[in-house]
Amino acid sequence: PVATKITIARGDGIGPEIMEATLRILQAAGAQLELEEIEVGEQVYLSGNTSGISKEAWQSLIRNKIFLKAPITTPQGGGYKSLNVTMRKTLGLYANIRPCVSLHPFIATRHPKMDVVIVRENEEDLYAGIEHQQTDEVVQCLKLISRPGCERIIRYAFEYARQYGRRKVSCFTKDNIMKQTDGLFHRIFDKIASEYPDIRNEHLIVDIGAARLADAPELFDVVVMPNLYGDILSDVAAQITGSVGLAGSANIGESCAMFEAIHGSAPSIAGKNEANPSGLLQAACMLLSHIGQTEVAQRVQNAWLRTLEEGIHTADIYKEGVSRQRVGTQAFAQA
Amino acid sequence: PVATKITIARGDGIGPEIMEATLRILQAAGAQLELEEIEVGEQVYLSGNTSGISKEAWQSLIRNKIFLKAPITTPQGGGYKSLNVTMRKTLGLYANIRPCVSLHPFIATRHPKMDVVIVRENEEDLYAGIEHQQTDEVVQCLKLISRPGCERIIRYAFEYARQYGRRKVSCFTKDNIMKQTDGLFHRIFDKIASEYPDIRNEHLIVDIGAARLADAPELFDVVVMPNLYGDILSDVAAQITGSVGLAGSANIGESCAMFEAIHGSAPSIAGKNEANPSGLLQAACMLLSHIGQTEVAQRVQNAWLRTLEEGIHTADIYKEGVSRQRVGTQAFAQA
Ligand SMILES: CC(C)[C@H](C(=O)O)[C@@H](O)C(=O)O
Ligand SMILES: CC(C)[C@H](C(=O)O)[C@@H](O)C(=O)O
Repeated sequence: PVATKITIARGDGIGPEIMEATLRILQAAGAQLELEEIEVGEQVYLSGNTSGISKEAWQSLIRNKIFLKAPITTPQGGGYKSLNVTMRKTLGLYANIRPCVSLHPFIATRHPKMDVVIVRENEEDLYAGIEHQQTDEVVQCLKLISRPGCERIIRYAFEYARQYGRRKVSCFTKDNIMKQTDGLFHRIFDKIASEYPDIRNEHLIVDIGAARLADAPELFDVVVMPNLYGDILSDVAAQITGSVGLAGSANIGESCAMFEAIHGSAPSIAGKNEANPSGLLQAACMLLSHIGQTEVAQRVQNAWLRTLEEGIHTADIYKEGVSRQRVGTQAFAQA
Repeated sequence: PVATKITIARGDGIGPEIMEATLRILQAAGAQLELEEIEVGEQVYLSGNTSGISKEAWQSLIRNKIFLKAPITTPQGGGYKSLNVTMRKTLGLYANIRPCVSLHPFIATRHPKMDVVIVRENEEDLYAGIEHQQTDEVVQCLKLISRPGCERIIRYAFEYARQYGRRKVSCFTKDNIMKQTDGLFHRIFDKIASEYPDIRNEHLIVDIGAARLADAPELFDVVVMPNLYGDILSDVAAQITGSVGLAGSANIGESCAMFEAIHGSAPSIAGKNEANPSGLLQAACMLLSHIGQTEVAQRVQNAWLRTLEEGIHTADIYKEGVSRQRVGTQAFAQA
């Protein structure tokens, strides 16, 4: 089989070590990939390019269309824009898919039956980046919701549910307060839901939805949300599976797709061979499925589950009585 | 002692029965209150008044300044504004205080050591209610943050911490994306925090803050947030103590204060004598402390804890092995 050319970036903080671990595993599993490496993030920012990405890097992304990205750091202080957000918008990555699954009894969790996929709208909402100072004392940010934006992400959620045999799609909005913006999302949800009679649907106000998700995630299956709620609640969902370090995510567009861990670059443990590479590895599995190398993805997934099952755990998920061996990043990859 | 005149509203759904239960307990504990009753909510809405409140009711509130409010229902469909939000803004109730405490081992919870107070900004943010249709396909909502609004709520959080001997104030914002609006909140937090060297402080991006709060609430003490994050995360925090039905909240302004349960009017169990009156009762205890009847508040609080401790539980918190007797609303009040 011919190798698929993809773009990768090793990122900042723990990025390089978890990328190395991930690439070793992909290679051992027989993934057919040709890697083109770009540099994005902190070094690019600090070299004076406030976008965090060079023109050549963009060209690589647009050419290859598939991107495996390690976490990056945006420097503190004025003038830097979030590269994650810029990439999602520039590449039209409208759907952010975040599966959050408990691996009970191999990973300690309070929610053993959890198996939730958060489908997060990825371009609109308060992330549109339209902010201004109104007076000396007042600042404003625009929350923007469009009909095509809602239709696209909600249809994606139902198609995803159908493809993966999931039974219910829930929608969270705050349309009792934001009757026009969140109201539009809710109305389009109801309309599209009616085209999928085989899949159950429900709408919850986001406050009570979030409360139930945090307390009884086994009540949910696929959950679709506007961007900011999805940002917050996918972190909640990932964390309560046992560790935010276990979850990968796919950012999907019409022509491009970017795959990354949910967690950040964790500078405090960078370079210490302590980080859990699982989030990026899960992202890589989603990438492999996306490009049709499903068997390789399955092989990696099995090896990963088997390693966790054997109690070979990195520090973030190590727990007396559940884990058996505490290992570093590279030993975990080796296992 | 002279009685304090307060305004009460029995509300909708389970409102009347939990108000009745609460008033019985307050009377039995010797609260010195003179009650003035107003009608707000569903009946008022459906009578054609889309604000849900009459002019006379407003006059009662402005006269008495202290309001104990049962949950209300806003009818579905166009034209109705949220009365909760209108009251918070009209009466200048800028601080929404929501203590979320685990009552382990009396109430089943996954988070036995939880004792968090959410201090939520209560007037600004996306709740300002400025929404409009931009084009056929695009709707917008304004998120509004002001310097005085931030200063007031953040100072309130630190003063609260000092008064109640709490050691840390955490702040959650999304200022890596909303650098001006959430950025302002964060900067003012840092500035005011420096005036309280006796109290620890920290800022977390709201996504990871939410994840930690949901997974390890014992890490937090007082948490101050803009309005919408506070709405969502106070529901999460209340729910994971064991039940959203246990938490009361205070809406505090310069001259007025409104006390209410965190939960809604739960129409599905209305009139069945099943609802847990604890949320409104906790709100009533906050009211009693606020008007200086702290001994009565303490008496009610002790009786309430004792009842829960004895395993006399309403359906929402009843759990085999923890509870001993499953009771209705009025029997719980009687106990
Ligand atoms: C880093 C940040 C801009 C990003 C977001 O807010 O979307 C992150 O939290 C995420 O969830 O991918
Ligand atoms: C009923 C609703 C308008 C209200 C809010 O959003 O503030 C409620 O959820 C709350 O938390 O008090």
